[in-house]
Amino acid sequence: MNKLHDEFGACMIGENSAFRFLCGENMDEISEFFESKTVQSGEVLWKEGDPSDYMAIISSGKLEIKKQTEIEDKHVIVGIYSSGAVVGALGILDGRPRAVTVSAPEDVSLIIVTRENFSKLTKTKPELGVKLLEGMLLSVSMRLRYSYERLAKFF
Amino acid sequence: MNKLHDEFGACMIGENSAFRFLCGENMDEISEFFESKTVQSGEVLWKEGDPSDYMAIISSGKLEIKKQTEIEDKHVIVGIYSSGAVVGALGILDGRPRAVTVSAPEDVSLIIVTRENFSKLTKTKPELGVKLLEGMLLSVSMRLRYSYERLAKFF
Repeated sequence: MNKLHDEFGACMIGENSAFRFLCGENMDEISEFFESKTVQSGEVLWKEGDPSDYMAIISSGKLEIKKQTEIEDKHVIVGIYSSGAVVGALGILDGRPRAVTVSAPEDVSLIIVTRENFSKLTKTKPELGVKLLEGMLLSVSMRLRYSYERLAKFF
Repeated sequence: MNKLHDEFGACMIGENSAFRFLCGENMDEISEFFESKTVQSGEVLWKEGDPSDYMAIISSGKLEIKKQTEIEDKHVIVGIYSSGAVVGALGILDGRPRAVTVSAPEDVSLIIVTRENFSKLTKTKPELGVKLLEGMLLSVSMRLRYSYERLAKFF
């Protein structure tokens, strides 16, 4: 639990962090719903098309977000996510398979929450659920902003 | 109020709608925090760089999301949003200026919520705030998914 607490602390740094709207005391209250997970350099967290039932928030390290192109086995990196970023938010909202492949170009520490635990969190602590969801929405909205900036560069 | 109620109904249609997780009764409870707004064909809802203090959900019609390119006065359409979609979610989370220009290629009906009213809603009705935020996160996450699909096509 102490390790998880340290990782929560790391995730709170950064203005676009999913935990931006939660204070340290809030984090203690919700930590029971989360687990920590590490991904070694070179490993794949999930592949495009995999089943989807959890989301992750990066506490340290970077993740590469890749999308399959029209050429078989050719991927393009559509994003590089770092501390505080949410990956796989659709995994707790929607049962569809993963839309992207996520891999670790370096060692990464994550905080993960399953769909089941997220649902328990928001039902039992809706005030904290609101703060967490606002942070997740901020994180995903900022990724969309960057993605649109990148699209605009192609024209 | 009846008109707003009808528009809420329209927004609930569609699996990626921001109101997907709210039932009709929930909508009645939160309608006091929203206002309806219409945008005529050819009008601009906001321009990239404008101040930002509200978000909108489309109840009918389509909005074009445009991003300035490196060439002066040249914009590229990065998305076309339809019924149920959230536009300007960052407006209620973050004080930064608008990241995109939003215009109406046809008559559009919107439901809007100011940052102040959104904050009141989530404080007084956190359970409904959770459901609304989950729907908003779904809507924005699906846009990010489409945006990544589009980026992958350039390679």
